[in-house]
Amino acid sequence: MVSRLLVSPEELFGDGVFETVHVRPSGPWLLAEHLARLRRSAELLDIPVPADVADRVAEAVAPGLSDFSEISEMALRIMLTRESLHVAVSPIPGAALRERRTGIRVISASIGHELGRRPPWSLSGAKVLSYGSNFAARRWARHQGADDLLWLSDEGYALEAPTASLVWLADGELCTVPAGEADILPGTTARELLSAAASVGLESGERMITLAELRDASAIWFASSLRGLAEVTALDGVARPPSAWTRRLLNALGYPLAP
Amino acid sequence: MVSRLLVSPEELFGDGVFETVHVRPSGPWLLAEHLARLRRSAELLDIPVPADVADRVAEAVAPGLSDFSEISEMALRIMLTRESLHVAVSPIPGAALRERRTGIRVISASIGHELGRRPPWSLSGAKVLSYGSNFAARRWARHQGADDLLWLSDEGYALEAPTASLVWLADGELCTVPAGEADILPGTTARELLSAAASVGLESGERMITLAELRDASAIWFASSLRGLAEVTALDGVARPPSAWTRRLLNALGYPLAP
Repeated sequence: MVSRLLVSPEELFGDGVFETVHVRPSGPWLLAEHLARLRRSAELLDIPVPADVADRVAEAVAPGLSDFSEISEMALRIMLTRESLHVAVSPIPGAALRERRTGIRVISASIGHELGRRPPWSLSGAKVLSYGSNFAARRWARHQGADDLLWLSDEGYALEAPTASLVWLADGELCTVPAGEADILPGTTARELLSAAASVGLESGERMITLAELRDASAIWFASSLRGLAEVTALDGVARPPSAWTRRLLNALGYPLAP
Repeated sequence: MVSRLLVSPEELFGDGVFETVHVRPSGPWLLAEHLARLRRSAELLDIPVPADVADRVAEAVAPGLSDFSEISEMALRIMLTRESLHVAVSPIPGAALRERRTGIRVISASIGHELGRRPPWSLSGAKVLSYGSNFAARRWARHQGADDLLWLSDEGYALEAPTASLVWLADGELCTVPAGEADILPGTTARELLSAAASVGLESGERMITLAELRDASAIWFASSLRGLAEVTALDGVARPPSAWTRRLLNALGYPLAP
């Protein structure tokens, strides 16, 4: 597994795009979808994607796959700066495994503006390496005693989390937020989950939802590649009953379940 | 001069702070002020500053100082991620020298919200490595045919530029925007300029200013460490007469002037 990268000083300024991919014994999961999003992100930043990106990924993942006798999952990061492509394989962070298993306490907070008010140079539709503010938002949530944060528009629409998409179940329908309308990053794990909904007897759809409506959902999750689904066990300090769907959906997506 | 750095993958996510310092034959200019701001930025991100930061800077700058028979200025970057401190010395980018010499055409655009509407985890008072959005704003300005961008609040107050502070001269007073009130980064070069105002017979002050008022200023500059002062030669497509103060103020600050 890669531990150090050789970079130029310019590469420390977050001026690039990335993807985080869940690696399974079968290989990197949803790799084609992640690479497609990487290309869309790179286009928004005017960064050309090297033609050999899939080869570089295969090369980085290969040594790790032979370790799968002992572990069942790993993290793959594909990072493309304006100067070079970096691919790194590492263990899944303990916090991600824990949050998948036990869920997360979430607080909500406004991003400070209404929908559609982002400036014209906004990179909100790209997965950009400049994550300082995303990390700051999570630190702020932790200082408030929560595990993670749900971003709201000023009108009160639930949008996304600093490192995850919002997914919820209401009236037998598994839903996520429409990325275009909400001006957020389209979630790869969330989209796959909605595609799998029918296989477990659920409808699926993309909907704008207010915080007030979200509180009435039967279950809420944050969806992201490494956590898979982290169930929201408390929202703004109000505990929520655990959902039997969490294990069923993680299973449908092929994430290892805790014994 | 440092060309490559060894980093961990986590260090590519812009989760750190930095300073850019102008290096002269006498050494790094305003180093104490830049290190003080680095410490304030790091505190906002909960990152401890290594005790040997000044030694690391001296060590990085020393070999470059012996080159000063041929060149008269260099760039020093101090970059502190959550994992390590990186110090790099490099030539001043050609664009910075050109913009100091010939000025810049600037367009203005709103950041999409009113003053005081930043979320509680905002890092706007810290100089954060996550510069993806700053670079995107400048690329957007260039696509509009300008060289740089002036950020406005939604109410129309002029705030700062993606990589510079706003400075202007009106009624014999050299002014900049109050960082606290405007919720922007305090500018090190701009503050030094205001301190030097009296030495060239000007008053100085910090004021909020609307775009309409700014248009009536006798001269406008963007102030930053490497450019020093770049005079705004056109604002939103309207050409502005060159100011005799540009050379006088660059001289007062000790920046080399083009022959």
